[in-house]
Amino acid sequence: MENFDYGMETERLLQWLGQFGPDPEGGMSRLLYKKSWVAAQQALAQHMRDNGFSVKYDAVGNLFGRIEGTEHPEETILTGSHVDTVKKGGLYDGALGIIGGLVALETLVKEYGKPKKSLELVSFAEEEGSRFPYVFWGSKNLFGLAKPSEVENITDFDGIPFVEAMSKAGFSFLAADFKPRTDLKAFLELHIEQGGVLEREKLPIGLVEAIVGQRRFTIKLKGEANHAGTTPMSYRRDAVYIFSKIECMIMEHAFAYGDPLVATVGKVEVTPNIVNVVPAEVLFTLDVRHTQKDKIVSFTDEVREKMQQIAKEANAEIEIDMWMDEDPVPLDPKIVDVLEEACKENGLSYRRMHSGAGHDSQIIAPRVPTAMLFVPSRAGISHNPAEYTHPADLGEGVKALRAALHALAY
Amino acid sequence: MENFDYGMETERLLQWLGQFGPDPEGGMSRLLYKKSWVAAQQALAQHMRDNGFSVKYDAVGNLFGRIEGTEHPEETILTGSHVDTVKKGGLYDGALGIIGGLVALETLVKEYGKPKKSLELVSFAEEEGSRFPYVFWGSKNLFGLAKPSEVENITDFDGIPFVEAMSKAGFSFLAADFKPRTDLKAFLELHIEQGGVLEREKLPIGLVEAIVGQRRFTIKLKGEANHAGTTPMSYRRDAVYIFSKIECMIMEHAFAYGDPLVATVGKVEVTPNIVNVVPAEVLFTLDVRHTQKDKIVSFTDEVREKMQQIAKEANAEIEIDMWMDEDPVPLDPKIVDVLEEACKENGLSYRRMHSGAGHDSQIIAPRVPTAMLFVPSRAGISHNPAEYTHPADLGEGVKALRAALHALAY
Repeated sequence: MENFDYGMETERLLQWLGQFGPDPEGGMSRLLYKKSWVAAQQALAQHMRDNGFSVKYDAVGNLFGRIEGTEHPEETILTGSHVDTVKKGGLYDGALGIIGGLVALETLVKEYGKPKKSLELVSFAEEEGSRFPYVFWGSKNLFGLAKPSEVENITDFDGIPFVEAMSKAGFSFLAADFKPRTDLKAFLELHIEQGGVLEREKLPIGLVEAIVGQRRFTIKLKGEANHAGTTPMSYRRDAVYIFSKIECMIMEHAFAYGDPLVATVGKVEVTPNIVNVVPAEVLFTLDVRHTQKDKIVSFTDEVREKMQQIAKEANAEIEIDMWMDEDPVPLDPKIVDVLEEACKENGLSYRRMHSGAGHDSQIIAPRVPTAMLFVPSRAGISHNPAEYTHPADLGEGVKALRAALHALAY
Repeated sequence: MENFDYGMETERLLQWLGQFGPDPEGGMSRLLYKKSWVAAQQALAQHMRDNGFSVKYDAVGNLFGRIEGTEHPEETILTGSHVDTVKKGGLYDGALGIIGGLVALETLVKEYGKPKKSLELVSFAEEEGSRFPYVFWGSKNLFGLAKPSEVENITDFDGIPFVEAMSKAGFSFLAADFKPRTDLKAFLELHIEQGGVLEREKLPIGLVEAIVGQRRFTIKLKGEANHAGTTPMSYRRDAVYIFSKIECMIMEHAFAYGDPLVATVGKVEVTPNIVNVVPAEVLFTLDVRHTQKDKIVSFTDEVREKMQQIAKEANAEIEIDMWMDEDPVPLDPKIVDVLEEACKENGLSYRRMHSGAGHDSQIIAPRVPTAMLFVPSRAGISHNPAEYTHPADLGEGVKALRAALHALAY
């Protein structure tokens, strides 16, 4: 397919999929089990049927399109991503992994005929957790990892129960005798980077070796409210000042650790938050990520001790609550090598990197050899109507995915 | 009046005045021109009439009770404070200056008969700016300083126009031919400290030499929002980190200046304020006070330059908006000396100090020799239902005020 424009075709199909779920306020809101979601899955199923895929849904609504292998049909090479978006998200996050996979599979069959091993495309039901407070519903159900009890009592922002929404869309929980598939030999996920590394380095492709682990904390710092005019500086236990010392310490410590550690204090709430009152309390969050668990543990342990020390010296109370502790997920070195080889053979520029955000691949990687490919996100933007990847970069990403699928399945 | 308990009598009358305007949610809400405010002024007027004062209101509703002097009736020694409270304030702020003055004047006349110079008590209509966005309405009208145009277009939180509220309470603007009084020879204001200095130092009386000036700023710091996972530390322009450097710098610089300078960053708003997004913007306030204007100017100039430097180094935008610039008000050294002498003669413990908060005295001081007396505020609390001054301290304060009024008028 020498003269085929993979980028333009991918862009065209992304726009086509984007007709399902445009948000009236801009961007895409294609939320799990909503009408637009059902329409998108149905349209994808029809498109795949029209192009020679055998199509099926699983019980919860994950959609699969399969090209049966000629020599080892019992070995499946899977690619894809999630069909849902965040509220007011963009055209690319998730969708690119499905559309890019579709373009790759269709053009492979067109050029090389049926594969030796089976090739399969998945459009996962859900990854974002944007409608219901549950993430990775799609990929977890691929392995029977999502327990019905976890979603039986959750509702969306309109109060609609998860089970009702699922049922209305025509789906249900996995059967009691569900058995995870054993035919999956590799999973490849093409995704936008959601960061600015590739754009800055002017590279069209990132080969993802690991997905970061993360810890999240909420920290409550308690000083004392006082009159801003009548309280001498030395009498004060100013929570904003104490917070600022802690923030500077965290950031300095993060820079000292160096990449790939990132630490973010994203949310800060001050009480009483009045111009002429010395602040009594600051509640803030801390998000720490790294590809190595031991680094996450040592960094957060050190920072915890330093925070307590700063609070103690300032005669302030501090409560540190860790409410998320996710392990990093290494991707499969052999599959990453396959991707690298595919890039080299096709003269595609790339770099190895990690993912700082979560993806379906992190659910799949512990069970099936998995790797990811990134393409640049303009200005590092994602989860936003301004999400954009240039067709030229889309094309390079799809070519790399296609070449790797070829190497694995033909 | 050797055996008279000034503290208990003051406390009793404060409770009595507190029956006008208790807030259903706790504390006092006696707001300008409200029914409870009218009732309080009427009750004070009746009380003064019953005790031999000649009573009158001015046009706007300031209430005066006068004991005519026997030798120099054309020279008036004035005391008092404001009758309004903040919303859900306490029993003491403002009220103490009126009730303490009442107790002082009544007991002076009872013990010594009529004064040589006239003694007068004022219950100012308004000082807090709690109903309408206008402060010092009472004391400014004593001198014709409040222009009708300044209040003609303002409304309260219920949309009631200032002029309508004033008219309904039975008052109006000063007459066109209003002339400020020329008979006022001294003004003394007894007030709670609203800070914790006297309580910490276990002193019942503070002699106020100056009221601080203040500058207030709103500062907008603009960095860049980024994904908390996918944006390496070195790519970031984290507005909370930059803010924290600025906050630490301001506080360190304030400590270096030393008392009586105080600097407060009371309000901090972070955008977008989400746990997994690097903060794009921080909007914060800065309140700086000192008794010397040149110190306020030099401190804020230095801090402004340092803020701009920090923002520049971090590649962030900064907007610094000064929206308040009030000069310090020195009180009258001779009147402060009279108060000190009165304390000494009566064996009352005191210290000289400044006021970090605004008071009616700052309007009066440039026009009439003025001084203030403070009594302790428990835990430094004011503008709160928990406002409290022990009757023993109330008594010491009233005794000092009484002795000074005696020295000035007899």
